[in-house]
Amino acid sequence: MKNKLSGVFVPTITPFINEEVGYKELEQNLKRLNNTNIMGHLALGSNGEYKSLTRNEQLKILELFVKNKGKKVIMAGTGCESTRETIQLSKEAEKIGVDFVSVLTPSYFKKIINDKVLINYYTEIADNINIPLLIYNAPGFTGGVTISARAIRKLASHPNIVGMKDSSKSGIQSYIVNTMDIDDFYVLAGSINFFFPGLICGAVGGVLSLANVIPNICCELYNLYINGEINKAKKLHLKLFILNSKVSGVNAVSGVKAAADICGYFGGNARKPLLALGKDEKKELEDYFRKEGLI
Amino acid sequence: MKNKLSGVFVPTITPFINEEVGYKELEQNLKRLNNTNIMGHLALGSNGEYKSLTRNEQLKILELFVKNKGKKVIMAGTGCESTRETIQLSKEAEKIGVDFVSVLTPSYFKKIINDKVLINYYTEIADNINIPLLIYNAPGFTGGVTISARAIRKLASHPNIVGMKDSSKSGIQSYIVNTMDIDDFYVLAGSINFFFPGLICGAVGGVLSLANVIPNICCELYNLYINGEINKAKKLHLKLFILNSKVSGVNAVSGVKAAADICGYFGGNARKPLLALGKDEKKELEDYFRKEGLI
Amino acid sequence: MKNKLSGVFVPTITPFINEEVGYKELEQNLKRLNNTNIMGHLALGSNGEYKSLTRNEQLKILELFVKNKGKKVIMAGTGCESTRETIQLSKEAEKIGVDFVSVLTPSYFKKIINDKVLINYYTEIADNINIPLLIYNAPGFTGGVTISARAIRKLASHPNIVGMKDSSKSGIQSYIVNTMDIDDFYVLAGSINFFFPGLICGAVGGVLSLANVIPNICCELYNLYINGEINKAKKLHLKLFILNSKVSGVNAVSGVKAAADICGYFGGNARKPLLALGKDEKKELEDYFRKEGLI
Amino acid sequence: MKNKLSGVFVPTITPFINEEVGYKELEQNLKRLNNTNIMGHLALGSNGEYKSLTRNEQLKILELFVKNKGKKVIMAGTGCESTRETIQLSKEAEKIGVDFVSVLTPSYFKKIINDKVLINYYTEIADNINIPLLIYNAPGFTGGVTISARAIRKLASHPNIVGMKDSSKSGIQSYIVNTMDIDDFYVLAGSINFFFPGLICGAVGGVLSLANVIPNICCELYNLYINGEINKAKKLHLKLFILNSKVSGVNAVSGVKAAADICGYFGGNARKPLLALGKDEKKELEDYFRKEGLI
Repeated sequence: MKNKLSGVFVPTITPFINEEVGYKELEQNLKRLNNTNIMGHLALGSNGEYKSLTRNEQLKILELFVKNKGKKVIMAGTGCESTRETIQLSKEAEKIGVDFVSVLTPSYFKKIINDKVLINYYTEIADNINIPLLIYNAPGFTGGVTISARAIRKLASHPNIVGMKDSSKSGIQSYIVNTMDIDDFYVLAGSINFFFPGLICGAVGGVLSLANVIPNICCELYNLYINGEINKAKKLHLKLFILNSKVSGVNAVSGVKAAADICGYFGGNARKPLLALGKDEKKELEDYFRKEGLI
Repeated sequence: MKNKLSGVFVPTITPFINEEVGYKELEQNLKRLNNTNIMGHLALGSNGEYKSLTRNEQLKILELFVKNKGKKVIMAGTGCESTRETIQLSKEAEKIGVDFVSVLTPSYFKKIINDKVLINYYTEIADNINIPLLIYNAPGFTGGVTISARAIRKLASHPNIVGMKDSSKSGIQSYIVNTMDIDDFYVLAGSINFFFPGLICGAVGGVLSLANVIPNICCELYNLYINGEINKAKKLHLKLFILNSKVSGVNAVSGVKAAADICGYFGGNARKPLLALGKDEKKELEDYFRKEGLI
Repeated sequence: MKNKLSGVFVPTITPFINEEVGYKELEQNLKRLNNTNIMGHLALGSNGEYKSLTRNEQLKILELFVKNKGKKVIMAGTGCESTRETIQLSKEAEKIGVDFVSVLTPSYFKKIINDKVLINYYTEIADNINIPLLIYNAPGFTGGVTISARAIRKLASHPNIVGMKDSSKSGIQSYIVNTMDIDDFYVLAGSINFFFPGLICGAVGGVLSLANVIPNICCELYNLYINGEINKAKKLHLKLFILNSKVSGVNAVSGVKAAADICGYFGGNARKPLLALGKDEKKELEDYFRKEGLI
Repeated sequence: MKNKLSGVFVPTITPFINEEVGYKELEQNLKRLNNTNIMGHLALGSNGEYKSLTRNEQLKILELFVKNKGKKVIMAGTGCESTRETIQLSKEAEKIGVDFVSVLTPSYFKKIINDKVLINYYTEIADNINIPLLIYNAPGFTGGVTISARAIRKLASHPNIVGMKDSSKSGIQSYIVNTMDIDDFYVLAGSINFFFPGLICGAVGGVLSLANVIPNICCELYNLYINGEINKAKKLHLKLFILNSKVSGVNAVSGVKAAADICGYFGGNARKPLLALGKDEKKELEDYFRKEGLI
């Protein structure tokens, strides 16, 4: 399992043409990304705007990923608010043929979503599906709902829960140290900001929005780490840290999409009500990519 | 319009039987609530667990409300993450025959959801539907996303935006003072905690989870205020404030459902992963209702 | 005791001349304020910038208040980080002759300041001084440290703890309902924003930064409430609510000081590093006061 | 300058005997710590409970550190709420003979403390003293007040501002990347939690509460990093990360003091109102130290 979770994953963006899903454009992006060194794709992730898609769109998109899988690993974001709906969507994803489901914590009733609720939630889902499950912790998207390291430790022993992706700003080390004695549980960094520091501390890979834009450079960082070239890795990490602050840092998925356009992928606009970058903002971003020799 | 928005609204709970929507039980609750002095229902509100329902379930539930409307006003919660999906669901609600849509702020991409985004969002929705729209501000459910009083002031002038329901802990006065010179825009309190203080400051009504449980007592508070019996209103308000801290205060919708059971409505369990109250907790709550002479 | 705590208190500002305490200017302000209908002063409050004063300055200022007390009640802010230092300063204040001490929750070690710590803290202080103590809850100044209603209820029974001033945005009702059956414990609102709503729910008075600026109008609001003129009170409340948003709302004590200058008191600059309002900001504020007929 | 700021610093605790400063016990701790490989001490830091000390106590403590300096570097925490008082205390520290002052951001008027205020603040202090200044950013102690990387970049060019200590959970990388092209500005980690990841990214040292307890082991981690033994460093880092969660993680300075007692230093109780650990808690902590072979 470790092999399939190591390295760089792309939380692949969903293109829209006049608010309609651009399936053709998505396919083109996938084909191009598949020619890079990435380990795989996260379909229906936060950067895939999965919460802004209808169920039908979600399923068609998953089919597209599986059809264009090539040699890549496909994870699918399937977290809904109810256990029941998450199981249903996860089963559909399983049937379509993805490799993993990545399940975000529910968050609407934040006040009463605690570790007990989350342990029940993930256990019931993992019990009811036949593909391995990754827990997705992302307090920035869930209004602060987060899962404790203690709960993760408990869930990590479930045979069908194989890892987690952490996108909190400060939690990843805590998840790593609390699961490092558990077999076959792996932690992935949810941002380039703590990808290299995470690897240094024991993470095996990362799901990196920047990999929508400069996939091979992200992979290069991973390889430098793997080859023990810590100083080179550090330099590249700091460079990408700054770059990331200008891409998803300020503008979240809208920034990622603008950067994708800049780098020759199809980015386009996020679905409304999200705003696209203004002309000047986009120009400034493009200039930065050029200055850094990235285009 | 003011008449239709004044007084007490019930954010009516959705019963579940073994995780399936209990349509029959919902119908029984509606019939009983319709015999009280409430002004109307909010179908598919937070307490209706609308984020845990499939689209199909949502539509069937709306039909049930409209069929059992009697002389009550029906609001429908139709806020989704994308403008497009919110419009679609709002149009369905319109076709089914509800009186108002109540649209929660989107929240997933919290970092980039600002006043400009929200003004575009509500304007485009209001432009595209033919029934009046209420803005629903509830930072407790949106991870802190909130709409500013300045944005509300701007939106209040839209002919199809007729009011807002505020469930923030501290914002309602700000919305009231910033819209009090605007014709035909009304503010409703989203909690009994600030229903009476809100009325005193200019709110016209409230959407009160407690009205699922003790609808006529909530209406009595409203009537005391309307009749200028400020001291009696104050006493009842303080009593209900304490009661509410024991019902939705600790356990959110699970507390409301337990209290509904206690008061002879069909409450049951919230959909998983939410937990039902434990036996002891429920017993304690029941004892409190008894001690206060409410059952 | 209730008489001495009812009505309007001024959290009186500390004038500075070139960063030195302006004792003469303070005395002039006090004399003028003493000719209004206020019930008393809070010396060394947040708006008195007591955390920016040396111990010596604090003591000299207290002496000045007591000397210029007239018929007014004097409260003194004496909360420090350690129990020991708070007791020492409170005893000094007692010796100087103030009527009450108002003790802010400690906050530096926020992570470990809980109800148990706060109950010990206030109990030990109240046990060791001979003047009555008010608890001061102000999460906006303590980085979120707040005292629970349950702890307040427990402390309210201490014979030497006679009330609290609450400046949280949403807590005051909770404190009121949890102490309303306790003899001789009174709740004061820490902001004009919830002064009138607080009175309606059972508060007895308020410590209002606006009373540094328009003391008699604040007192008029109190009198309207006392005389049952709820509608007039409501109108004045809403007017002052808006005014306050432009005074302390945006600029905290710097806004209060600018407004004091505008209304003929000595305001001047807050101590550095706080910034004074810019010329344009001050002009705009002055225009607003003029437009509203307040100067 | 870099030499004097590299490696491990102890934010040395202040012992209390029945609430009085235990100068003799402090001296004993210092002598023992001076026999370890630490680079120096931070006197009057957060773990020194400097906000709970009177000015007199602070000065006597600084004198004690300088007298017992040996070959160690002495930093002194001198941040107060007003610019004026911070300068005064910093000058006293300079006269006593410390090597650096470490100045916490002011925080009381959080709402109006922004980058402009902080840039003015640090510039004026640095202009008025003759010893080098470190900026201390610690939102956990300042209720969320934090200084931006942009402001740090600007301040880093001041000839008398030589570095910063960051104790935020997630900011250190941002400060590093934004100052890495500036000569003679150094970043120190304010917690063992991000000491090793910080070093990997460019920090030069750390001020580590654990160094009150196991100074040489903290130094060993530093040396492993310096010698490029990344894997060994990682293992030790993860071990100390867990240890730290049990020491300052749960109980802040009270945990550090209990652990100091366990390891043969004089710890004792924090000043009230802070609570000491209970007997069971302390026993459990001692057992953990024993199990890990640390005592």
